[in-house]
Amino acid sequence: MPELLETFPNQFPGRDYEIEITCPEFTAVCPKTGQPDFATIVITYVPDQSVIELKSLKLYLFSYRDRGIFYEHSINTILDDLVASCQPRKMTVVGRFTPRGGISSRITAVYAATT
Amino acid sequence: MPELLETFPNQFPGRDYEIEITCPEFTAVCPKTGQPDFATIVITYVPDQSVIELKSLKLYLFSYRDRGIFYEHSINTILDDLVASCQPRKMTVVGRFTPRGGISSRITAVYAATT
Amino acid sequence: MPELLETFPNQFPGRDYEIEITCPEFTAVCPKTGQPDFATIVITYVPDQSVIELKSLKLYLFSYRDRGIFYEHSINTILDDLVASCQPRKMTVVGRFTPRGGISSRITAVYAATT
Amino acid sequence: MPELLETFPNQFPGRDYEIEITCPEFTAVCPKTGQPDFATIVITYVPDQSVIELKSLKLYLFSYRDRGIFYEHSINTILDDLVASCQPRKMTVVGRFTPRGGISSRITAVYAATT
Amino acid sequence: MPELLETFPNQFPGRDYEIEITCPEFTAVCPKTGQPDFATIVITYVPDQSVIELKSLKLYLFSYRDRGIFYEHSINTILDDLVASCQPRKMTVVGRFTPRGGISSRITAVYAATT
Amino acid sequence: MPELLETFPNQFPGRDYEIEITCPEFTAVCPKTGQPDFATIVITYVPDQSVIELKSLKLYLFSYRDRGIFYEHSINTILDDLVASCQPRKMTVVGRFTPRGGISSRITAVYAATT
Amino acid sequence: MPELLETFPNQFPGRDYEIEITCPEFTAVCPKTGQPDFATIVITYVPDQSVIELKSLKLYLFSYRDRGIFYEHSINTILDDLVASCQPRKMTVVGRFTPRGGISSRITAVYAATT
Amino acid sequence: MPELLETFPNQFPGRDYEIEITCPEFTAVCPKTGQPDFATIVITYVPDQSVIELKSLKLYLFSYRDRGIFYEHSINTILDDLVASCQPRKMTVVGRFTPRGGISSRITAVYAATT
Amino acid sequence: MPELLETFPNQFPGRDYEIEITCPEFTAVCPKTGQPDFATIVITYVPDQSVIELKSLKLYLFSYRDRGIFYEHSINTILDDLVASCQPRKMTVVGRFTPRGGISSRITAVYAATT
Amino acid sequence: MPELLETFPNQFPGRDYEIEITCPEFTAVCPKTGQPDFATIVITYVPDQSVIELKSLKLYLFSYRDRGIFYEHSINTILDDLVASCQPRKMTVVGRFTPRGGISSRITAVYAATT
Repeated sequence: MPELLETFPNQFPGRDYEIEITCPEFTAVCPKTGQPDFATIVITYVPDQSVIELKSLKLYLFSYRDRGIFYEHSINTILDDLVASCQPRKMTVVGRFTPRGGISSRITAVYAATT
Repeated sequence: MPELLETFPNQFPGRDYEIEITCPEFTAVCPKTGQPDFATIVITYVPDQSVIELKSLKLYLFSYRDRGIFYEHSINTILDDLVASCQPRKMTVVGRFTPRGGISSRITAVYAATT
Repeated sequence: MPELLETFPNQFPGRDYEIEITCPEFTAVCPKTGQPDFATIVITYVPDQSVIELKSLKLYLFSYRDRGIFYEHSINTILDDLVASCQPRKMTVVGRFTPRGGISSRITAVYAATT
Repeated sequence: MPELLETFPNQFPGRDYEIEITCPEFTAVCPKTGQPDFATIVITYVPDQSVIELKSLKLYLFSYRDRGIFYEHSINTILDDLVASCQPRKMTVVGRFTPRGGISSRITAVYAATT
Repeated sequence: MPELLETFPNQFPGRDYEIEITCPEFTAVCPKTGQPDFATIVITYVPDQSVIELKSLKLYLFSYRDRGIFYEHSINTILDDLVASCQPRKMTVVGRFTPRGGISSRITAVYAATT
Repeated sequence: MPELLETFPNQFPGRDYEIEITCPEFTAVCPKTGQPDFATIVITYVPDQSVIELKSLKLYLFSYRDRGIFYEHSINTILDDLVASCQPRKMTVVGRFTPRGGISSRITAVYAATT
Repeated sequence: MPELLETFPNQFPGRDYEIEITCPEFTAVCPKTGQPDFATIVITYVPDQSVIELKSLKLYLFSYRDRGIFYEHSINTILDDLVASCQPRKMTVVGRFTPRGGISSRITAVYAATT
Repeated sequence: MPELLETFPNQFPGRDYEIEITCPEFTAVCPKTGQPDFATIVITYVPDQSVIELKSLKLYLFSYRDRGIFYEHSINTILDDLVASCQPRKMTVVGRFTPRGGISSRITAVYAATT
Repeated sequence: MPELLETFPNQFPGRDYEIEITCPEFTAVCPKTGQPDFATIVITYVPDQSVIELKSLKLYLFSYRDRGIFYEHSINTILDDLVASCQPRKMTVVGRFTPRGGISSRITAVYAATT
Repeated sequence: MPELLETFPNQFPGRDYEIEITCPEFTAVCPKTGQPDFATIVITYVPDQSVIELKSLKLYLFSYRDRGIFYEHSINTILDDLVASCQPRKMTVVGRFTPRGGISSRITAVYAATT
């Protein structure tokens, strides 16, 4: 639900600076088995005119709680939604998923503004 | 047994993103001594049109359980089989083998698609 | 296969001393799913007249590799077999099994000689 | 939903042995704020006639996902439900909850059978 | 300011269970130098009829922020205030203070109800 | 209060060398909630003619204790004030803030002298 | 130089509470080789009427800097001097010395008041 | 070669205090395979009239370098030799041996003076 | 004794892949003091036509056990011997030596084939 | 006292190899407060014709023990003295100083030979 995301104006747009946000409490549902998945999400970005409001980000990530979605899909969708919301200069979203069947996964998706 | 590997279509082929898969439960048999070897396998790749299905990867890796194969051979074969199966843009396979005779080994093999 | 276990005479039977053996490479097969299980086995004992020969212990633990057996069953059976083999003054067997479905298990079984 | 819990007969009732189960993926909802809580649950018990079936335990713990419940209440209820289900000789349930407002909590509840 | 502390009724008074609360963000002022001190406070208690409400505890601990108080004094006062507020069966308060002049300190104060 | 910052002459201006200063005891107040925030501040710079005096830096960082300021604002302001005070060849300021609502943040701002 | 030690009155003499002080910056001189020794000193005590003033303790420990003294001698002397100075209910002094010739040492001396 | 061990008089015989010595550089030869074994030896004792001189201990432990000896034998012999040399009130010798064939061992032998 | 080293043909000469071998059990003798030195040796190389046989490497490294040789000399000699034996595309040898007189050393030597 | 430093001829001048030396036992005196400072010094260099003799380096670093000197001054002086003594191809000296007033510092100075 990307409409949950809010931003506020970047007060230091003249400088490239980096914001890294770590959320170890991401959970969604596997569309195949119906069982919950768990991940730590790390978002790193250089803001342009807008900064993501943290409380709205929390609500946005919590909106995945009852949603059936594959690993790759969730990470790429989070990247798309966040980029659309705050139009950053660049952004990386990483999801480290806990092990299933002895196998753990990490997905990394990157966006860079074209100039 | 590369025929165990399955893939599904990549839903985000327009973007280079990275998938890292860690399997700490790899075991094969030393062809010289007949004794089991143990390793953690880490696969990192950028998918093109296909993504490796995780359950099939698990079964594929488990198919080495009773197979006599040297360290270098197993890592290079896993790379060859996975590249053939999902045709990635690039892929790295790392195997960290537990110590034998006070010596532990790590093998790293890399594939990059030619364009 | 308890007949794989060998012992040699304890050279210091007049003193209670403790031997702890750690094997991080234990693997068996889940009798329900047919999938491999992995554990670290830790054996701690006070020898009486016999000490367990380590190479035979390794072969004994490796004999579980293709055997379908539940967690609780394997740890209690290892304890029974080792006690029968070396008749220790006391012995503890611990198995720490890797996560399945987000849940990891540790089983601890203890034997004390009655006097 | 305690009716989700299943048990199977303990094959080694003549021996006191300990089972420890760690589930780092417990989540419920705060009844006050409606926001999700996250915890690692550690269950340690000595079985008597019955052993808890792990898959049913997983489903039981997942049934808290959409339930509004306080920390203390959830840990004591888990202990009550598990004791009722498998009638252990003794059992401890520990919940380590992630920080909220800079404060993290751990709840420990213990049961011992009266003889 | 002990009047900031609030409690709610213990729903499981028939059972001795333990609550441990960790607050790594405690800060007060050294009455000698006027410089800030920093500590991690760990509170462990067995509730009787009342449980400490966590948000009120947070506000209570934050009330030390501008207060000049020695290490020993703060830990003993926190113990006194919490005991007065929730009348626990037993309680321990530990403060681990960050190094000053190359020396770090830990203060541990314990209360047990007399019966 | 940038006027708290003091410097002393760099005795090795002919050489580019790096100074890294770590302060794990930074605290300010959230302008929205009035609740305290906590961070570790890491300052890395190459001095030109002036070196920052450490005691004055400590007092400068402590002057944020009662100030309502957002994460991004504080890190960018610290960078601006330190650059104005010691005119370094380059400088990075990093703030790692403790979790709020399950989310932790790290802000990194960089300055490089133009030549 | 025990005369460097200062104390102040214990404000909570009615309660047994514990103070632990860690000083990782202890150094003395080996009387045999003239080379410096380095240790972490940990002092744990239950105060009676007096509490050790930390700044004076720091100066006291620094007075060993140029003194030729063996490991055992320094730890026992620190215990004797601190006990004489603050008359605690009980006290432990531990010194963990850094390796010399591949061997590291830890000395632990304990005092308990006789009643 | 126990004759390498030297002691010096304990200056604090009126107090029970503990000395712990850690030597991570112990090596001997396996009498079966002729291959080197490696261990960390930890000696803990309460001296009576004599304290072990560390340089002589180092030479004593180094005298095992070319000696064929089993794990259990070496730890029990070190304990016997050290007890004979310094007549302690009590002593523990622990040897943690590095893995061989995926199995690592720890031997613990204890001596207590009879009174 | 470089003649101890054996190799076998590289089965994947068409691909650059990396082998890293870690031996934490290297020991030699200091030519000055006659005392043993201890190090962890890490060898990383890209094989060309030959791969180093691990058992022969173990015996080769063990041949330093009674040899008087300085740190720098041993690491550079190991590199020379291994390069001569397997003619790799590139190779790095690192030795991390344990502390002597409070100082620990790491030596890193690199070889790259000229083309 | 740079005259304490000794070198010996590099036996492998034809190859660029790196030597890293770690000394966790550096101590000097703060010229302002007269109190001791403590640091870990890490020296990394590529030798040209001369290698630093380790025992002389130890004595050189110990000569700072009673010297009043600021952090920046000591690290830059150590670099100057070592460069003058062994004329390396390149060298880095890092000093990690323990916390004072809640603030810890790391100074890094680099030298590269001009060709």
